[in-house]
Amino acid sequence: MDGDASRQAGPTSQAVGMHWLVDCHGVERARLADVDGLRRALRAAAEAAGATILFDHFHDFGNGGVAGVTGVVLLAESHATIHTWPATGFAAIDLFLCGATRPERAIASIEQALAPQRVVVKREARGG
Amino acid sequence: MDGDASRQAGPTSQAVGMHWLVDCHGVERARLADVDGLRRALRAAAEAAGATILFDHFHDFGNGGVAGVTGVVLLAESHATIHTWPATGFAAIDLFLCGATRPERAIASIEQALAPQRVVVKREARGG
Repeated sequence: MDGDASRQAGPTSQAVGMHWLVDCHGVERARLADVDGLRRALRAAAEAAGATILFDHFHDFGNGGVAGVTGVVLLAESHATIHTWPATGFAAIDLFLCGATRPERAIASIEQALAPQRVVVKREARGG
Repeated sequence: MDGDASRQAGPTSQAVGMHWLVDCHGVERARLADVDGLRRALRAAAEAAGATILFDHFHDFGNGGVAGVTGVVLLAESHATIHTWPATGFAAIDLFLCGATRPERAIASIEQALAPQRVVVKREARGG
């Protein structure tokens, strides 16, 4: 996180932002098939982080989301995505956030929305 | 990579896919500001990997892309995104690929399109 410098940082500077990979296991099937609910959840997570939403798009793989859902929210601060596997209760979320955002709030928001039994979070600095 | 099992894998199984974070440093400013060129490059990378493109959306942050470009290609196999900082020659790409794809071909395709002076690639298993 490097605040207002995020879109000026470069090859010899500190990271431009952090990329969070959030694996949610043991999520109810219905939550992972609900394309509108997932859209609301990912947008709410971005807003919880203080990010500015530019655009979203969600895709239902079929059978009312039961075959899985994939979606993206493009942000002024980079992006959030989600991919779900309802049959096995798994969702893969990523949050790439630059600027003065609060990623921990986004992750808490997602956990509240999905209510996973287990969450694995990894973090990678980008551009450092 | 777990081939055809990718959309059935779950909490107790192997990873559903690999998430590649590709940082490109020292890229010509003009390449990083060219929204149409970046769209073509990211789509070509996805196709090089053997992925199926569902949708794309690219956003120009202003001044003909000079303020940066952000874009996403949603795939049947998950997604590819790019965020560029033309002023400092940096681009952050990520590729989340499930199924029987060839991510190394996608990365080679991106490197050919952007011609970076330096590339840092990180890989994380998702859902394992």
